[in-house]
Formats: sequence, C-alpha cells, structure tokens
Amino acid sequence: MTTAVQPSTPSTPSPPSPSPMEPTRRTTVGRGRERAVADRDELHAFLADGMVAHLGVVVGGHPVVLPTAYAVDLEGPDADGTLYVHGSVAAGWLRAAPGATVCVTVTELDGLVAGRSAFHHSMNYRSAVVLGTARAVEDPEERQRALDLIVDHMLPGRSGTLRPSTRKELAATAVLAVPLHEASMKARAGGPGDEPSDVAAGVWGGHLPLRRVVGEPVPDADAAGPVPDHLLARARR
Amino acid sequence: MTTAVQPSTPSTPSPPSPSPMEPTRRTTVGRGRERAVADRDELHAFLADGMVAHLGVVVGGHPVVLPTAYAVDLEGPDADGTLYVHGSVAAGWLRAAPGATVCVTVTELDGLVAGRSAFHHSMNYRSAVVLGTARAVEDPEERQRALDLIVDHMLPGRSGTLRPSTRKELAATAVLAVPLHEASMKARAGGPGDEPSDVAAGVWGGHLPLRRVVGEPVPDADAAGPVPDHLLARARR
Repeated sequence: MTTAVQPSTPSTPSPPSPSPMEPTRRTTVGRGRERAVADRDELHAFLADGMVAHLGVVVGGHPVVLPTAYAVDLEGPDADGTLYVHGSVAAGWLRAAPGATVCVTVTELDGLVAGRSAFHHSMNYRSAVVLGTARAVEDPEERQRALDLIVDHMLPGRSGTLRPSTRKELAATAVLAVPLHEASMKARAGGPGDEPSDVAAGVWGGHLPLRRVVGEPVPDADAAGPVPDHLLARARR
Repeated sequence: MTTAVQPSTPSTPSPPSPSPMEPTRRTTVGRGRERAVADRDELHAFLADGMVAHLGVVVGGHPVVLPTAYAVDLEGPDADGTLYVHGSVAAGWLRAAPGATVCVTVTELDGLVAGRSAFHHSMNYRSAVVLGTARAVEDPEERQRALDLIVDHMLPGRSGTLRPSTRKELAATAVLAVPLHEASMKARAGGPGDEPSDVAAGVWGGHLPLRRVVGEPVPDADAAGPVPDHLLARARR
C-alpha cells in the first residue's frame, strides 16, 4: 500500500472539533495529510472500536513491537484520557517501558483497494498512533479500574460479573498507563485514487470491504448454565 | 489479556520441524513459552495469512510503530526468506530505517477468551515478531518483484493483470527488506485456562471466535466491465 503518496480518496469528513487534538511534531501526520483525522471524539470512538494495540518499546537499543489488549479511560488521571495496557510483571518489555517514551498504535483494516496500477493499490483502514511516557500504575484503585476496563473493552459488561481479583493475581500483573495527549489518527475509505489515463483505459477498479466478525460464544468443557447475556450481546452487536 | 502468566491452552501442536527457527536472545519467547511456535513452515503459513504488519523503527530516540502492507519472499536474497514493506520515499520513518534494527510484528486475532476471572481473560491470536537490520532495496528487479509480491499478498493474482509501474511511480516508492532469520511466533487458541476453584463454582467460561471477512468487490464509479475473477476469488476464498 503506497498509502503515503497516492491522491487520497477523502476519508470520513471531520466535523468541527470541540476539543482538537494537539499533535506535536512527533505525531503530526507528515505524509498523506489529507488522511489525518483531527477530531478527538473520532479518536476516542475509534479506540473504543479497535481490538488490539501494538506497543512499541525500545529494549536494548532496538524497537520491540508486541500486540496487547488495551483500554482507554477518558475519566482517568490524564486530562486528555489515559490508555492502559497490561502484561506479566516478568515480561522484559514491561520492565523497560516505565519512564520511557513508548508508541501505542491501534489499527483496524476496513478494505483492500484494487487500483488500476500497482502504485494505487492501498488498504482502507483506521489507525491511531499515541506517543507518550509510560507510567507503571501502582495505585491499587487505578490498577483495578484499568484491568476492569481492559476486560470490558473486549467483552462489555463482563467485569461486573466476575469475582474480585486476588492479591496474587494483581501482583503478577503489570499495568502501564500512557497519556492520550500526544496522538494522531489517520483513516482511509473508499475506492482507488487512480491516474486518469488508467481510468480512461477501462481497467476495473474498486475495493473489497473487510470486516471483523465476532462469532457466537463457544462454551468450554466445564461451562455450566446458559451463555451470559453480555457475551451473546457481544457476538450479535 | 494477561497472556503471559496464565496457564496456557495448548496452541496448535508443532510438527517436527525440518528447518527450525533460530531465535536469538532477542526473539526467544520469554513469557508464555508454551505458546511459542518453533516451526518455520508455520511462521511462513501465518505470514501468508496475515494482512497488515506493524513496523517499529526508532526515530529521534523513541519508537514509532506504523501499520503497513507487507509480503514475504521465500526465494529472496536472504537464506531464511525476506520480508518486504514499502512506503513513500518522503516518509520520515522510512528514511530512519535503512541500516537500523527494526521490528516487524504481524498479528491476527482469532478469538476473545471469556475466563472465569479477570485474570484469565485473554485473546486467541497468532503473532510473529521479526527483528532485523532493514535494507533499502535499490536493485530495480528486486524492487519490482517486492512491489508485485505486496500487491499479490493483498489480492492474489492481481499484479499480473496490471500495467508496469512507471519510472516516476517507482522513484516515489521506498522498499525495505528485513531478513526473516531472527523471528519468533506465538499462538493461542481455545478456551480459558481457569483456576479449578472458579470452575468448581460453576461460572460460565469459554471463548468467542473472531474472523475477518472479505466482502464482495465494490466497483468504483469509473469501473468498466465485469469484476475480475481473481478479485471474486479473493472475496470468496
């Protein structure tokens, strides 16, 4: 996907923003500026819709990028919202992150763009990039809230149905917070932005939509009773 | 997803490997070792199935993680295969990458795991992490082959139907190669690995499968003639 150089198909228009994002030089969208999304509500809506984050941390001088569950707390300690990820206290990258600048990227693919030339092939997507200093969350109340939010991000309504975490479970889990302040978002939608000469030549062009489907809950061998409603709702929403 | 500490549901068993991966200390799976996939064929099959890579590059001392299309060439210049990504020559991260160690991570989500406690919630997934020194691809033949592979990775059979790239298009596109030598893969499948006491308490546990659906091709306003067969095949495979 030569996303950066091709003429852009307009992405979803951004409404006037009540709380504009404040990109710094590091998160200002440098390429494909017409795909930049400058509205914080749109960022929040996308982060609520995304399913997995890729967390980049510098470990031993080189970048390490790992997939991780995440959640956002707009009522959290940071004015612009707080993004949480978690992992084992024994994971090396989680030890390297606190106090360091990390990059958290969330991407959802929405389509494959079949241009009329190799150059104009692309993907439709939404992607948010958050840069910030990672903070190890130590406060028990914030930790518990972050972990509940991560469970509920995957399966809304689930955390309220579960027993409290044990002290041992909490001690084995590291929670990282990254402020949502320094963030950028890009989105692409629609068909290819082809050369007029290729269009004139009558080549077929268009796109193939992509979507993620959540299947019906599969009970494990020990599952008792009916499937909880909140899980059925997750599959059917 | 406290993927790292929970007892693992066995992932797909790895058959005896004819060409084992050679993880270094940097890519050796440190946590959740039971989820490590040690078979190179399985890595290749997954990379063929994945749709988007997250490329991590250190720019200005901090990590930057960006989504990108990719392709793998097992007949490429590197003994263990070559992973290619591309982008605009004007993109800052593409300028920072050549000669530097980069991390390319490909993740596909396969399910949401509803454990009987917050701690045993997880995601089913396949993920490959490739670390290596990025090389700017300058050889015209290798560049063209890499770009064709990237188009065909998204839409198999497509590159052969397109006009050749122009000199201007090729000049605007940067191609990066990363050897597949230093790679690791993890996978998780199935239901939760819950505490026996939670199972005994009769709480429901299981998982919700996730899958990505490729929709029927959508012609753009200028598309002429029938949808090409290779695109129909992509949607229906």
